[in-house]
Amino acid sequence: MTHLLIDFSGNHPLTIMNPLLFPYPQEAPEWSVSEWFNTPEPITLASLRGRVVVLHAFQMLCPGCVLHGVPQTSRLFQFFDPKDVAVIGLHSVFENHAAMKPDALKVFMHEFRVKFPVGVDTAGIANRIPVTMQRYQLRGTPSLLLIDRAGRLRSHKMGQVEDLAVGAAIQQLIDETF
Amino acid sequence: MTHLLIDFSGNHPLTIMNPLLFPYPQEAPEWSVSEWFNTPEPITLASLRGRVVVLHAFQMLCPGCVLHGVPQTSRLFQFFDPKDVAVIGLHSVFENHAAMKPDALKVFMHEFRVKFPVGVDTAGIANRIPVTMQRYQLRGTPSLLLIDRAGRLRSHKMGQVEDLAVGAAIQQLIDETF
Amino acid sequence: MTHLLIDFSGNHPLTIMNPLLFPYPQEAPEWSVSEWFNTPEPITLASLRGRVVVLHAFQMLCPGCVLHGVPQTSRLFQFFDPKDVAVIGLHSVFENHAAMKPDALKVFMHEFRVKFPVGVDTAGIANRIPVTMQRYQLRGTPSLLLIDRAGRLRSHKMGQVEDLAVGAAIQQLIDETF
Amino acid sequence: MTHLLIDFSGNHPLTIMNPLLFPYPQEAPEWSVSEWFNTPEPITLASLRGRVVVLHAFQMLCPGCVLHGVPQTSRLFQFFDPKDVAVIGLHSVFENHAAMKPDALKVFMHEFRVKFPVGVDTAGIANRIPVTMQRYQLRGTPSLLLIDRAGRLRSHKMGQVEDLAVGAAIQQLIDETF
Repeated sequence: MTHLLIDFSGNHPLTIMNPLLFPYPQEAPEWSVSEWFNTPEPITLASLRGRVVVLHAFQMLCPGCVLHGVPQTSRLFQFFDPKDVAVIGLHSVFENHAAMKPDALKVFMHEFRVKFPVGVDTAGIANRIPVTMQRYQLRGTPSLLLIDRAGRLRSHKMGQVEDLAVGAAIQQLIDETF
Repeated sequence: MTHLLIDFSGNHPLTIMNPLLFPYPQEAPEWSVSEWFNTPEPITLASLRGRVVVLHAFQMLCPGCVLHGVPQTSRLFQFFDPKDVAVIGLHSVFENHAAMKPDALKVFMHEFRVKFPVGVDTAGIANRIPVTMQRYQLRGTPSLLLIDRAGRLRSHKMGQVEDLAVGAAIQQLIDETF
Repeated sequence: MTHLLIDFSGNHPLTIMNPLLFPYPQEAPEWSVSEWFNTPEPITLASLRGRVVVLHAFQMLCPGCVLHGVPQTSRLFQFFDPKDVAVIGLHSVFENHAAMKPDALKVFMHEFRVKFPVGVDTAGIANRIPVTMQRYQLRGTPSLLLIDRAGRLRSHKMGQVEDLAVGAAIQQLIDETF
Repeated sequence: MTHLLIDFSGNHPLTIMNPLLFPYPQEAPEWSVSEWFNTPEPITLASLRGRVVVLHAFQMLCPGCVLHGVPQTSRLFQFFDPKDVAVIGLHSVFENHAAMKPDALKVFMHEFRVKFPVGVDTAGIANRIPVTMQRYQLRGTPSLLLIDRAGRLRSHKMGQVEDLAVGAAIQQLIDETF
């Protein structure tokens, strides 16, 4: 028995203090990735069931991503035990596609020392909003998504998030029974 | 049942990834305070049993405290739910006593917007190392101490600590059964 | 002959771009100091004629001073040649006098590694606004004052000032003929 | 007559305290640019004679440029009067050429709010070290070059430079007679 006032069995909202976490989590949709970096083989969300998943959607020429989101995601990747937490980058290009193709992303990742796995969000119809971005209804980049061990989307935040809040939120998801 | 690989029943060290947390926790000694600020009445460690306790030992003229420790402690005080986490400052003066008396501390706290409760560590014999500092064997300031819901000292770190690590460590202690 | 569009001979305002510098400089009043630190003997403004003077008015328990003003003044002290620029601190206590007496200031300066000379602004009547603060009509701390080689007050700025602007302003005063 | 101990008439080294500035300046070579942004027409170094020139060589996917050099150059562009100082960016791509073509640079400049004029350093033979980079013997990016009103290269620094030092150095060059 834990002290957490979380009851997934009924219809009550979750009683959770961390402002990053939703009261009404829903199943996270599978992502759609056309190409992977920093991983020997493709990664599916389904395969990560049982682990907490940090999904960081970014664009390599987005200042908020370069200055805050990507460095923070690197810290998360370094800090948490991969047995508990999978940290995944998602390159969700919805503008200026020609300047942010996978080859350019590869250079960016090398130069900015990005070590976590990054998937290229599958291009959308007419090269617009990519597929995973649509599925998750992302409003822009950077966006931080937290998925719990049971595959539920528990947090979705665009913009800059404090390390303290994200560290506590991830740890809370690590610690939940499921 | 939780997924945490923590077994307090036997002699095994705790299997914990957060580098701030000890493998072998021990009971935290009660503090000794001669004067309190930001609280209507004195606070004992014993009275906080059941809550996680963040104890931040500082000196008002210690640069590492002023620049890092005290602002971080203010963030912790703002972020965590007081029902789960008690954030307490301890003014442990072990040098330059004349310049850091309680009246000066009061000015410091007003000017630096310190809102969390702060206790003045009881002066030691011959005005040297104060009593709580001795009991906890603090090596200097700033020092961050984390005490779990069962009253055990789980972390003791001098110097600057990353928000990510301290946020995750506190959340882990929040989430533990006991 | 210099290229500077500065004409001190007539009544025209100075044509100066640096936003820190006044168009109409006036003679800087002598300071009044009751006690000095970091200097073998008292320093008068008059004795610095021929050098640019950076006068940083601060209080040891003022957050803007501790976090910005004093560290910046230390950088100025380290960077500029003392043959050209005299960097002087002025401890202008106008509130909470008991907590910021010279003995406490001495501790502050030791702990925060303040190496530039600091004078204690002479206490005012009834222990209120100190004498130099009145003479210069300072509105608070931190305040940065720049005095040119000819003893004229050329800049007076309360609050945080960018290194770029202050570096350029001081260099401009260094470079002026007089 | 200025107080500066600078004597360009003889063979003596310049007596200058700013560590960014050379004792033995030489004529700065003309740059070679294949394409310009943020300017209605091409800019030559020769056309800037009489003004101080700040030349910031960068690459859009170089972390030190994105995090420090480019923001600092934007501050310089905003701070100094364009009648005195011309601030010019030079995109000197010597690696990963395919990811940093002019179209990508244009996106970078838009996203990172780069307002100063930027020239694309003319590609070198076999697409290696670009022409201006060779002429100035740049060792990498970011590099900050300062050219005085007389067209002499007075500073050449790779890596991060403090605002205080660069502000003072530029002001010193502004203030020189020539």
